[in-house]
Parts: sequence; structure tokens; C-alpha cells
Amino acid sequence: MSKAAAPSARTRVRRLPERAHYATDTVAAIVDAAMLCTVAFQIDGMVHAIPTIHWREGDHLYIHGAKASRLLKALTQGEACVTIALADGLVLARSALHHSMNYRSVIIYGQFEPVTERESKLRSLQALIDGLYPARWDTLRPISDKELNATSVLRIALTEASAKVRNWGVKDDEEDLDWPVWAGVIPFHTLSGEPVTEDDSAVREVPSTRFS
Amino acid sequence: MSKAAAPSARTRVRRLPERAHYATDTVAAIVDAAMLCTVAFQIDGMVHAIPTIHWREGDHLYIHGAKASRLLKALTQGEACVTIALADGLVLARSALHHSMNYRSVIIYGQFEPVTERESKLRSLQALIDGLYPARWDTLRPISDKELNATSVLRIALTEASAKVRNWGVKDDEEDLDWPVWAGVIPFHTLSGEPVTEDDSAVREVPSTRFS
Repeated sequence: MSKAAAPSARTRVRRLPERAHYATDTVAAIVDAAMLCTVAFQIDGMVHAIPTIHWREGDHLYIHGAKASRLLKALTQGEACVTIALADGLVLARSALHHSMNYRSVIIYGQFEPVTERESKLRSLQALIDGLYPARWDTLRPISDKELNATSVLRIALTEASAKVRNWGVKDDEEDLDWPVWAGVIPFHTLSGEPVTEDDSAVREVPSTRFS
Repeated sequence: MSKAAAPSARTRVRRLPERAHYATDTVAAIVDAAMLCTVAFQIDGMVHAIPTIHWREGDHLYIHGAKASRLLKALTQGEACVTIALADGLVLARSALHHSMNYRSVIIYGQFEPVTERESKLRSLQALIDGLYPARWDTLRPISDKELNATSVLRIALTEASAKVRNWGVKDDEEDLDWPVWAGVIPFHTLSGEPVTEDDSAVREVPSTRFS
């Protein structure tokens, strides 16, 4: 992973800066590896945060939702902070305080902008579907104007983003290395399980997905 | 899962209220199933959000960190919003807009309070370690006063919390049911992989954990 400078003061990682990455490719890879982000924002000075599915196209992270939602309304009116975190493993040290977690995380600051132009919105929603299930969009019952109008798509630039990664072993104090307790890393993997076909699905053959 | 009323106006789920749960046991089960939460807060009117490990004791969610961190300082001075989200599966429908995700999420509003009393702090940190790795605390090199002093433990009540759960199959429009495309759910499972023992670990036998 390449090292680049923080794109802004608020983006600079202060805690454990040795874990920080500001390179676009590092940020993009973590955004792509996760399906859920948390979007934090304010309404009348009160902080809210909502988990939602996201996807990426180029230098933007996209979210979508019902046009009537207060989340999407508030997001186009003020600054947001988007976080993504993937737990990759547990780090077991000889002392309590050196226990840790291997993870990949991203924090993005900025303001969302709505994707309103019809063709752009269609293309974005297709990118969401086809990103999860290659070539599925064209096999679906076509989206109606009513459905498209009831849906908002928003995007935020990945310009002010930072990534934080811990992906190494145990870092104990030198004098603790002989302590008689197991030290090591227990990794986590997220796997897709057996697909469950709907009873009334006209097609029984499970499509290939990003996860299969 | 039992249905209870929302504990406050800001806690009430407005989007898709049929997925909402306010019962303490439902909230607690989701908090326990996740290792990472996102803590959203304000500093000087700017929204920040930071992913961090959490644990639960009774009616509180706990987090910890370096005493010097700006996150922990800001948290004792204002309101926070904590979110937890677990992606359980992808829902593939016949139409784009009925695609969905099975998930469990929790949103907590409130203000964190510091756990400062020495014995309470020790007991909390032990609950974090032993919650992940039963009975490990007593096998570790004992925590020093310096380490304990450099660590802050904060907790937030689960009083103002709501959970949202989707755990069912495809909900397509009646007239789309015959559409010739696969419809169903692809579940996700997070599994622990093969533990990686540190080269210099004095003990080679991997301990039992919450995940093994």
C-alpha cells in the first residue's frame, strides 16, 4: 500500500498514524470490500448516523434510498462523515492492553450531492445491481418511472478520505514475550452460504454473484 | 422478537417501521453479535464518526481507547449516536427496487459517561477480554497502573436504542412473480479461520474463544 499525504486537516489520522493510508487505491479497495457504510450527519444540531448499503463508481461512494427519507434530505444540506469498517481478525497478546484487532477502515468527510439526471441515476442503480450480481440488471423486470422517481441516489467524493489498516501480528512489550500464554491472530472470513431459492422462483438455477 | 414502543421520539424508526424492534433483549443480542460499532459525535459543530470495538455489560455498551484521544474527550461532552450493523444476506428480487439486504442493526442515542473508578474500570476491561476469550484475563501479564491510567473506558446506556431487522425472503410485486429470473436469498456467515500462532509464543496450544 502506498503512502500519500492527508488530503485535509480533518482527514489526517491522529491516533496510531502508522496505520494511516491516504492513497486513492487503498481507500477504493476498502470501499469495494465492504457492503455497508455508516453515514453520520446533523439535523438541527443533533447527530444521527445510519447504516446503509453503498457502492463505488470511480472517485465517488454512492448510496440510495426512498426519496422521502429524512436521511437523504439532510445529507444534501450539510456535511457528512461516512465510515466503513471491516473486522479482519483478533490479535491476542500476552498483556491485556496489547490485545488488538486487525481491520480495514475508511472515513470520508464531505457533502453528498444528489444524482438527479435520469440516465445517470439509471446507470448508478445498474452499477449497484451489476456490481453485486454481474449482468443481472438486464434480466430483471425493467424499472418503472414511478420506481425511479421514488428513489434518490446520492454520491460523495472520495477526495477527503483516509484509510486505516492493521494487518500484522502481535506487538507485545519485549519483557513480556516469555509470558506463558498463547499469542497470535485469529482471522475472520465472511463467506456466502447456501443460496435459498424462493419457492415461487420461475428460475431455479442460482446466478453467479460477486461472492460465488 | 417482542414488540415494544420506541423509548423516545428520536429513537422511533420512521423508514420501514415493520422492521423496528425496541425490546431490550433484541437490542442486546445484536450488540453482542457485533464486535464493531460506529460512534458519531460533534466537535465544534462538525460531525465525526469513528469505528471502534465495543462490548456490553447489562444495560450499557462500552468502548475504550487512549485517554488522550479527541474522540473520547468529545464523547463525554455531548450527545453521541452509536450504530451497529450486520449484513446477513442479499435478497435478489425480480425487479431492481425490490432487491434488498437481510441485516440486523442498532442505533443508540445518548451521552457517554466515563468509567473512572479503578475497580470498575478493571472489571470492564476484564469483561472485554473474557467476553472474547473466556477466562483469558487471569492468564495474562497483569495490567500495570500506567497502562490502566492511559486507558479510558466509556459507557452509554441502551435506554434510547432501537433495532432494525430484516430476516425474510423476497417481497416482489404480485405481477412480477413469473418473471424469468432467479429470486432468493444469499446468506452471509462470518467464520473464524485458522489461528496464526506467533513464532515466539511460549504456548503453542490455541485457546478456546467465543468463536471456536
